[in-house]
Amino acid sequence: MSSQGKTITCKAAIAWEAGQPLSVEDVEVEPPQAGEVRIHILYTGICHTDEYTRSGKDPEGVFPVILGHEGGGIVESIGEGVTSVQVGDHVIPLYTAECRECKFCRSGKTNLCGKVRETQGKGLMPSGTSRFRARGKPIAHFMGTSTFSQYTVVAEVSVVRVAPAAPLEKVCLLGCGITTAWGAVTKQPGIKDSTVAVFGCGCIGLGVINTARDVGASRIVAIDTNPAKESWAQKFGATDFVNPTKLPEGTRIQDHLVKIMDGGLDFTFDCTGNVQVMRAALESCHKGWGVSTIIGVAAAGQEISTRPFQLVTGRTWRGTAFGGVKGRTELPGLVEEYMAGKLKVDEYVTHKRTLAQINDGFNDMHGGECIRCVVDMA
Amino acid sequence: MSSQGKTITCKAAIAWEAGQPLSVEDVEVEPPQAGEVRIHILYTGICHTDEYTRSGKDPEGVFPVILGHEGGGIVESIGEGVTSVQVGDHVIPLYTAECRECKFCRSGKTNLCGKVRETQGKGLMPSGTSRFRARGKPIAHFMGTSTFSQYTVVAEVSVVRVAPAAPLEKVCLLGCGITTAWGAVTKQPGIKDSTVAVFGCGCIGLGVINTARDVGASRIVAIDTNPAKESWAQKFGATDFVNPTKLPEGTRIQDHLVKIMDGGLDFTFDCTGNVQVMRAALESCHKGWGVSTIIGVAAAGQEISTRPFQLVTGRTWRGTAFGGVKGRTELPGLVEEYMAGKLKVDEYVTHKRTLAQINDGFNDMHGGECIRCVVDMA
Ligand SMILES: [Zn+2]
Ligand SMILES: [Zn+2]
Ligand SMILES: [Zn+2]
Ligand SMILES: [Zn+2]
Repeated sequence: MSSQGKTITCKAAIAWEAGQPLSVEDVEVEPPQAGEVRIHILYTGICHTDEYTRSGKDPEGVFPVILGHEGGGIVESIGEGVTSVQVGDHVIPLYTAECRECKFCRSGKTNLCGKVRETQGKGLMPSGTSRFRARGKPIAHFMGTSTFSQYTVVAEVSVVRVAPAAPLEKVCLLGCGITTAWGAVTKQPGIKDSTVAVFGCGCIGLGVINTARDVGASRIVAIDTNPAKESWAQKFGATDFVNPTKLPEGTRIQDHLVKIMDGGLDFTFDCTGNVQVMRAALESCHKGWGVSTIIGVAAAGQEISTRPFQLVTGRTWRGTAFGGVKGRTELPGLVEEYMAGKLKVDEYVTHKRTLAQINDGFNDMHGGECIRCVVDMA
Repeated sequence: MSSQGKTITCKAAIAWEAGQPLSVEDVEVEPPQAGEVRIHILYTGICHTDEYTRSGKDPEGVFPVILGHEGGGIVESIGEGVTSVQVGDHVIPLYTAECRECKFCRSGKTNLCGKVRETQGKGLMPSGTSRFRARGKPIAHFMGTSTFSQYTVVAEVSVVRVAPAAPLEKVCLLGCGITTAWGAVTKQPGIKDSTVAVFGCGCIGLGVINTARDVGASRIVAIDTNPAKESWAQKFGATDFVNPTKLPEGTRIQDHLVKIMDGGLDFTFDCTGNVQVMRAALESCHKGWGVSTIIGVAAAGQEISTRPFQLVTGRTWRGTAFGGVKGRTELPGLVEEYMAGKLKVDEYVTHKRTLAQINDGFNDMHGGECIRCVVDMA
């Protein structure tokens, strides 16, 4: 408890400039201000969104910055007025805040909270300042979470307590990919007894496949250009696998799916972030009722297109962020599901790294065999 | 009754070639075959879809053809096996068939019937032949209706009986625009107490405005570049009118609407067929829950685009054909609504023409003061 109220010096992986490897070095982490929580991060996943900003492709990326948004840790101290978590609580930081007060939270229609959005987008705490310093300079926060630091500070609205018995090296992954996939499926009515196609078999795609299986989809077609993903997809519940690169010359994946699936799919999910794939996912939908959900995040400036006829003839194009999940309300239950053996989490972890090896973890992610790499922050 | 079983020679407006005026001349109309109905058309509206094909812009347009799809008439004779209408019934032809047997009809999810679609698209009756002949040549059917002929033949699945007391010169308009608008709004849950924007104040746009008012939308913003449409929009229930051409230089309509409507609209409807407007309609939606519906039909080859971020942050893009209305099941009730004074129809009729003046009717439509021109086929 001696660290409370004091600046902590610890290790963090800092992205000093776009396109450079992360630098693991000392960072000073200020104590939490009113409404803030300082967390001792024990584990963090590495996600494509971290890489998107690290690479410099994100035009809104702020540098220097501490990335990371899929973490698990223990509350080290709390700022004035914080009531929903206490020192010692096991917690998961949330890049999608839930204030329960704003127009969005009160709408009952969305998980997108407006409370800290503006400052979060600028890499700052809600007060408009940063809690991180390194080499004498302020370091930006990232997605309101910055889990690539042994200690981080987040807004109270951006953190949720979970069962202390849950292994943080596993449930940290509920901070992004697995939860996103789970929510995208469970919050979409009608998937039971319906046909589903999932484009992209990374962490999110596999999560969508698995959740679709759990809710009772009648047929689940997994699509990936990597042949190694076929066995992964099957393991998570896919009934079919299609490799678009193995179709006859000139055959578009959407035409193939419409043909083999008797007019198309009831539901499709894009888990790739590729705008051409997003189009294929929409156009693979059955006329009259097919619903396509975009989960993947596209690169800046890219646009999706289709003929309006696709929509006029009854297809729906939608999207979801963090799977529509309200983190503070729903994550504890999801952790319980995992503890009860009803939600796969362990199965996604293919790689483990130490904080010192975090750049290797990014390399792992680029390889075809990696689903999730978890970094031990100790 | 003497005409039954015989070919009828009557007047029709024939489109001999793309881009040419219609030619009013004699056409021979064969008797209905099994499952077909021959209708004495008394009145027909003129709709933009007729003009789209007449102009030659529709790459799937077949010529020579008898256009028209918004008609009202009386059954002259029925083919073998026809049971749902009888000689003398007042009827409205349906370009969206309803067979009640196909996968689509049985799905309970769509009004798009697959039964006669393929032949209808080729300008033929389900048997693969035409019932029209002129100058010794077969003339194609159009949308399964061809209401620009004093007599037409349609499939039994493409016609519905309506109350004989209803004036056909009015309820003929329920064959397309007004019904489309009514269905697009009434079949979209959640419009009560919500904000709505309607892009385009033609027949369909005014119908959407009026239906949104009837179901209890809290605010209805009409958008049109024609200043004369402001009073029309108000008369049909709009609370606000925005002329995009009068915004400050460089201000996009979607940015303006997001600003004045506290983050955007709950529901938007494109009733223009312009793909740029479709984009604006989507992007005018409120983050987190806005739903944009495409009703207008775009020109061939044109595509809609947006950044996927628009969908990932909770907007939904959908479309509707014939408003999602199942014509045989729902049109009789809609006619009753009209007869009970609960549905505007008369108010849309701004122009009346005779069959001989039908090309003037097309010119009327291009003018800014025309909502609907009804042609007296006598
Ligand atoms: Zn992520
Ligand atoms: Zn909120
Ligand atoms: Zn029409
Ligand atoms: Zn049908």
